[in-house]
Amino acid sequence: MCKENLCYNEDMTKIVDHDQRRLIIAEAALRVIRQVGMKGATVRNIARESGLSLGALRHYFSTQDELLDFSMRLVKERATARINDLVSLDMPLVQKVLWILLELLPTDDDKLAEMEVWFAFTAHYRNSGTAFDVQHDGILDLVGRLLRSLKESGVLRPELDCAMETERLYAFIDGIALHAFLDTKRVDYERIVDLVTYHMKSICIEESFLF
Amino acid sequence: MCKENLCYNEDMTKIVDHDQRRLIIAEAALRVIRQVGMKGATVRNIARESGLSLGALRHYFSTQDELLDFSMRLVKERATARINDLVSLDMPLVQKVLWILLELLPTDDDKLAEMEVWFAFTAHYRNSGTAFDVQHDGILDLVGRLLRSLKESGVLRPELDCAMETERLYAFIDGIALHAFLDTKRVDYERIVDLVTYHMKSICIEESFLF
Repeated sequence: MCKENLCYNEDMTKIVDHDQRRLIIAEAALRVIRQVGMKGATVRNIARESGLSLGALRHYFSTQDELLDFSMRLVKERATARINDLVSLDMPLVQKVLWILLELLPTDDDKLAEMEVWFAFTAHYRNSGTAFDVQHDGILDLVGRLLRSLKESGVLRPELDCAMETERLYAFIDGIALHAFLDTKRVDYERIVDLVTYHMKSICIEESFLF
Repeated sequence: MCKENLCYNEDMTKIVDHDQRRLIIAEAALRVIRQVGMKGATVRNIARESGLSLGALRHYFSTQDELLDFSMRLVKERATARINDLVSLDMPLVQKVLWILLELLPTDDDKLAEMEVWFAFTAHYRNSGTAFDVQHDGILDLVGRLLRSLKESGVLRPELDCAMETERLYAFIDGIALHAFLDTKRVDYERIVDLVTYHMKSICIEESFLF
């Protein structure tokens, strides 16, 4: 723990870790967004949810945008950590790619909540007029790497165009994510697995599925 | 013009068409949403944009939700009219399906504005806790009909599953729409045409593209 992250809190009774506080506040922000949407993600509501005073919250995040950026980064970091765990596993490439793609989709309550945050953030930034950064969630880049690894391993059907397949898979994944987010009953876990498997079978050589 | 739609306005000087007024208000609402997003779509702003008083606006739409529903219906009606125009044209089926799919995507400023409204409405309803109706935009139903017509005409590759292809195309189209909406520079008109054509070629028999 670095020195800058340590200080005494108001009543000088215990040591406070700034990074830890920022994390607690960001997690509270995510819970508020999940519960009442972006419009309810006010500094006041987030302070109440985190158990901190308005003043304490403003000490860690001087503007609401700073807080929202930090919370979105938290969502991204969590997803990246889950994907890195999968990358290190020893399993057939097609299966690994399939699992990683499923990790990007709202297949459980936690990931559905992250999608909720993603959607709320995207709508917020769209409305605020801030330029949208396609790499903000890193998904296009990740999908590109997955496709190139399939191509290099000879698993991608040889007649297919790797760049076009990247864009197609990227659109397909975000489209399913959107539909699952909007209607979790219709696009449930089983349906998501069926759809992603169907697409993978259409772009990979048959032998690659024999595991 | 039916009798119920005619009345005298406040100063009794001219006849007002209620349906026409509702349309003017809804179009003003769409312009406000395009300009400042859903958060700026207040009754006050919409009244100012439509040139009507707050009282007059409330006479036509007693709640904001009523106004928003009406505006979303306007977006849907416009898209449906454009698609029906295409359906009646005499051209090869694959080309017609391609044109209809492109009609669903933000390939010009008007359609980008409609997407803006769709996204804002979706975010609004998501936050309001109202149950989402997958048929609210009619796109899943339309894509299903397009796929069945390709299947029945022998244009869809025979080994493909019509129901899975419907869900895949639906996700693909909404994914491209989302990406084009978020970054019109990266996913521009040319890229959208290339992507949809690429997908159509992957699901249709080769001979169907010889026109």
